[in-house]
Amino acid sequence: MNIVCLDLEGVLIPEMWIEVAERTGIDELRVTTRDISDYDKLMRYRIDILARNAITISDILEVTRTVEPLPGAADFLIELRRGFQVAILSDTFVQFVDTIMATLHHPFLLCNRLVVDGSGTIVDYELRQRDGKRTAVEAFQSLNLRVQAVGDSFNDISMLRAADAGYLFRPSQTVVDAHPDLRQASDHDELLRLIRAGALSSVVPDSV
Amino acid sequence: MNIVCLDLEGVLIPEMWIEVAERTGIDELRVTTRDISDYDKLMRYRIDILARNAITISDILEVTRTVEPLPGAADFLIELRRGFQVAILSDTFVQFVDTIMATLHHPFLLCNRLVVDGSGTIVDYELRQRDGKRTAVEAFQSLNLRVQAVGDSFNDISMLRAADAGYLFRPSQTVVDAHPDLRQASDHDELLRLIRAGALSSVVPDSV
Repeated sequence: MNIVCLDLEGVLIPEMWIEVAERTGIDELRVTTRDISDYDKLMRYRIDILARNAITISDILEVTRTVEPLPGAADFLIELRRGFQVAILSDTFVQFVDTIMATLHHPFLLCNRLVVDGSGTIVDYELRQRDGKRTAVEAFQSLNLRVQAVGDSFNDISMLRAADAGYLFRPSQTVVDAHPDLRQASDHDELLRLIRAGALSSVVPDSV
Repeated sequence: MNIVCLDLEGVLIPEMWIEVAERTGIDELRVTTRDISDYDKLMRYRIDILARNAITISDILEVTRTVEPLPGAADFLIELRRGFQVAILSDTFVQFVDTIMATLHHPFLLCNRLVVDGSGTIVDYELRQRDGKRTAVEAFQSLNLRVQAVGDSFNDISMLRAADAGYLFRPSQTVVDAHPDLRQASDHDELLRLIRAGALSSVVPDSV
């Protein structure tokens, strides 16, 4: 049985922190792991900025609830789910993507969560697991699934390497330079072709 | 993060072999694990009956493609997926449920597959894994997910016992007698209430 593990932000939807930065006008929220490589430090920094600007979870949801999938992504996902089991493995927070997951007909998603107090202040975050994308791929393999994985960035590499086949989707040149052997897709149609070619066999035999 | 593992036949959709037996008029296909307890022997018997009656995969798909979800099941699943990750763990064959999974907006499904030759004859079957429901629950737990599981029959018990919480849905009296400690739900509304009460916390905080 085939499964496709997809990164979310950059593959199906825009980067949510960037959307929040743009819509709240708080430029400090544009900081990413490229600026602060320690993820925990980065998150503490973000939570601190939100608190200083009195941005609550309601304010964030007001932004994230209006974000649309990337052009072509919704159709890609519909088509992909016709032939494959799909699991989205993301470092995002469940609160950020609650609405957009409904738009996409609730694909299977593993991600993290923000800890919110009674007043709506974001006080902490919970990682589901360290290196959670890779461990999910390995768990699926332990269930005798053939795993193909798709990501766009450095935090996807351990997942792509653990998978039976891994593809980069619209990666930056820095990622390509560091991992020149990984196949790439520059749009969703090309990605679908790569995944179909890499599958064990189709779900329903061609003869039907 | 919460996940709900659901058995398929008897919980969301009717028993597919029974549908095939009724619609083809081949009563021998009504045989179940209650009649032949060895699953491999049962499947060899079924495959043999299909061959003797010249029933191809196309004939079977003609039946299974018209089967509807159980009353209330589609709405239950929509509501469940709003608050939980859902994985359907089934002993069915992917070819049997191709269409009904589309009707249900492609929930995440792990199941088995029939092996079909070029002429459409069913020649064999592939189990994804022995005791595959239980191993899937354990794999999800290894990913730090809290697992609630729902099933209706003996082949679900190891899954229900491995889960953090397990519920029987409309079980037969024989199943209840053998496992009187397992909580039961007699309809989908009651099942939803049990699952919500057994969850770690809701996806989006109540305060939002």
